[in-house]
Amino acid sequence: MAKDITPRSDDYSQWYIDLVRKAGLADYSAVKGCMVIKPYGFAIWENMRDTLDRMFKDTGHVNAYFPLFIPKSFLSKEAAHVEGFAKECAVVTHYRLKNAEDGSGVIVDPDAKLEEELIVRPTSETIIWNTYKDWIQSYRDLPLLINQWANVVRWEMRTRLFLRTTEFLWQEGHTAHATEAEAVEETRKMLDVYAEFAENWMAMPVIKGVKSANERFAGAIDTYCIEALMQDGKALQAGTSHFLGQNFAKAFDVQFSTKDNSLEYVWATSWGVSTRLMGALVMAHSDDDGLIIPPKLAPTQVVIVPIPKPLPELQDVAEKIAGELKARGVRVKIDTNDQDRPGYKFAEYEKLGIPIRLGLGARDLANGTIEVARRDTKEKSSVPVEGLTHHLVALLDEIQKNMYDRALQYRDEHITPANTWDEFMDILENKTGFVSAHWDGTPETEEAIKEKSKATIRCIPLDNPQEAGTCILTGKPSTQRVLFARAY
Amino acid sequence: MAKDITPRSDDYSQWYIDLVRKAGLADYSAVKGCMVIKPYGFAIWENMRDTLDRMFKDTGHVNAYFPLFIPKSFLSKEAAHVEGFAKECAVVTHYRLKNAEDGSGVIVDPDAKLEEELIVRPTSETIIWNTYKDWIQSYRDLPLLINQWANVVRWEMRTRLFLRTTEFLWQEGHTAHATEAEAVEETRKMLDVYAEFAENWMAMPVIKGVKSANERFAGAIDTYCIEALMQDGKALQAGTSHFLGQNFAKAFDVQFSTKDNSLEYVWATSWGVSTRLMGALVMAHSDDDGLIIPPKLAPTQVVIVPIPKPLPELQDVAEKIAGELKARGVRVKIDTNDQDRPGYKFAEYEKLGIPIRLGLGARDLANGTIEVARRDTKEKSSVPVEGLTHHLVALLDEIQKNMYDRALQYRDEHITPANTWDEFMDILENKTGFVSAHWDGTPETEEAIKEKSKATIRCIPLDNPQEAGTCILTGKPSTQRVLFARAY
Repeated sequence: MAKDITPRSDDYSQWYIDLVRKAGLADYSAVKGCMVIKPYGFAIWENMRDTLDRMFKDTGHVNAYFPLFIPKSFLSKEAAHVEGFAKECAVVTHYRLKNAEDGSGVIVDPDAKLEEELIVRPTSETIIWNTYKDWIQSYRDLPLLINQWANVVRWEMRTRLFLRTTEFLWQEGHTAHATEAEAVEETRKMLDVYAEFAENWMAMPVIKGVKSANERFAGAIDTYCIEALMQDGKALQAGTSHFLGQNFAKAFDVQFSTKDNSLEYVWATSWGVSTRLMGALVMAHSDDDGLIIPPKLAPTQVVIVPIPKPLPELQDVAEKIAGELKARGVRVKIDTNDQDRPGYKFAEYEKLGIPIRLGLGARDLANGTIEVARRDTKEKSSVPVEGLTHHLVALLDEIQKNMYDRALQYRDEHITPANTWDEFMDILENKTGFVSAHWDGTPETEEAIKEKSKATIRCIPLDNPQEAGTCILTGKPSTQRVLFARAY
Repeated sequence: MAKDITPRSDDYSQWYIDLVRKAGLADYSAVKGCMVIKPYGFAIWENMRDTLDRMFKDTGHVNAYFPLFIPKSFLSKEAAHVEGFAKECAVVTHYRLKNAEDGSGVIVDPDAKLEEELIVRPTSETIIWNTYKDWIQSYRDLPLLINQWANVVRWEMRTRLFLRTTEFLWQEGHTAHATEAEAVEETRKMLDVYAEFAENWMAMPVIKGVKSANERFAGAIDTYCIEALMQDGKALQAGTSHFLGQNFAKAFDVQFSTKDNSLEYVWATSWGVSTRLMGALVMAHSDDDGLIIPPKLAPTQVVIVPIPKPLPELQDVAEKIAGELKARGVRVKIDTNDQDRPGYKFAEYEKLGIPIRLGLGARDLANGTIEVARRDTKEKSSVPVEGLTHHLVALLDEIQKNMYDRALQYRDEHITPANTWDEFMDILENKTGFVSAHWDGTPETEEAIKEKSKATIRCIPLDNPQEAGTCILTGKPSTQRVLFARAY
């Protein structure tokens, strides 16, 4: 295992933080709760962002940008929204600094107090629907399919890199529709986009479902979600898609004239994923040696390491291999570090989670072979230089698939039915993972279960089978099982 | 001219605002001084951003992300920087809202006052150099070539869409080097990147130069800039690249151990362009009918309009043409609006500045021709369908070149030498543009000239010829002419 990373078995939480910091993904900053996303972490995030952005555009969406600040009064306009978001916010109260009269530095100028305070956006429904009021008059203006990539701020007391930070990066889609059916379809469509991204790109299986009322987005009629399982058996909500009904249209008075000239309120959705996905990626796949990045998202997919060090006679071969891989669209890097030894470098590249490492030694080359090490299984093999590119391209696909299959197997082994409270607690405490159990459908019972067990309803899976049963806590009748878990 | 856009000759300023709003680039928001970047404007910005991002990466830079907030005390650490930036800032003083006891809405919770106020970043030198302190120990950690795409806030009293807004989007490069020479080289290299982008992509000629002390970035040793000329004869600073010396390294105590094991302060640069470039793009090229977008940045390069309206028999031809253009990498759109008349549509596409419009009529097609209208000159021609793709690809290049040449000719005609104060004022008032004049080299004289004429020194061009002369204001001796202009 890597020397500077705590093993998972010792302390999973510390393993995660060590890995995020030591592999160059992110670090804490001088501002409490805010992180610095380091170049390597940002390169992975760019791959995620660019992929999602393409998927959004392929489904007809366009990007726009709305203000960072939200007038305080906007938050109060939607009754449920204000309860959810007008709490832990960064509040801008002044717009000027001045030099302190005693020369001690700069102070806030008391004369520059804003008439109305501005909130740094925790989410943008209010400012966006206030804008949509000007953009939507007629059915011809609909649907409006807009996404924004932005930073948002939610003042968090306990933070963890990527998973819960005061400032984070995300995208938020905000769409407007003429009919309820179309808005519901959009909500579900974007959930499918998220699931496809999680599974096909992050190699992370997810369960698509709908949230219970307690876990619903503040202001939504329904919140759909994708739920993933981390290696420590805790669930992680990886993306949400909200059907907002006409709530925000009514709050901001956004009506449109229909084809037959009547006035109706607009139907809305919003949906988002964030840099939290970076945390999910780390926890879904990595090990005590470092990151394991799925090939499709890896900034470098193949690293070529000349052995024992970069030598002129190895450089030509390295460049030829790299050139052929690049021509096939593979992201490849040649190691040029002539100060460190191969063993050290191997450990470093393992820490970075680069899917394939090639060891380029003079003796192997004389035999027409090259050493290929895959990060996911740590297997090494000697592969003929002849046909190497073809082999590596196929191997990248295989690694991507193996990572998904491995995560899927773990996940599927960790969905356990429980029929009594004791079974329920035993699974949570010992086996961990999702627990499939009956619940009487009331928010009060969900809250009581959460207090007693620290587990929440992660979702009611889509197309959940109906099955008569009794609630594990209250014994009251239930019509279906739902998925509980302890969660990030 | 477009009906809803004020002609330039009536009111250039109003023309600009009308165009930005009516062509769907941006609009004012509910938050004073903050803009909404609308989908069409954002699509152009995305093309700018992606192009610049590629250029930065091709010159060895990587992206990262630093916090939105800066502790107030950080601004005071670099003496010149605090004078320049610790003024009109958005200040976060509280982190929580609560319900008002009288039920009137939400109020700022007085118990949630921050110990130290946070400033919404106006620029990120301080928070970044505070971070670099942890990242740089040895010469092996250098150079550090990092860029960030971010939103920044400078509280502006008088705002104008894109040109001066309280919040804007930009990129800020922040690099760290072992030697002064390397940092200066980086500063100049990025200036060249900006100039190449302005000229080859925006079709906007620029003058590369260095700023006088008065116009220098707060904290820089030297500020290099690219200066463009707008159609109304006013200059616009389109990008800056700063050589920061060791100022920030000293302020944040960032030292590195050299190869021979001595400790030295790190050398720094920073450089940025912003959504201001969107304003420059509009004002460099557009006319009373609307935008004129250079083909390389146009979200849609060719629009195909079936005449008199979308008909099944025209659809096949349109799709065939579009397919061939797409295969050549051309961004093409087929008009599917069956409600409006061709004349109305033509005016709309002219307003959007789409470089080429194809009119697809049944009669022309029977003759084997198609009507091609170019936006830059408004010329229409009848072109054989045979070889159309080849013709259009070449025409896009020609339009790009023509836009640059036209802007260059205008710019070159508007660099005028002045040898006396009266000449100087006459040019500024009547001919407008850049005035090349002698200045005695003192900040006081520059300030006096600015007060009397509203013109500033835009730059001292690189490789400026040395020429003995006398200052137009003071008559004192001068060694070179510098470029003055009234500016945005």
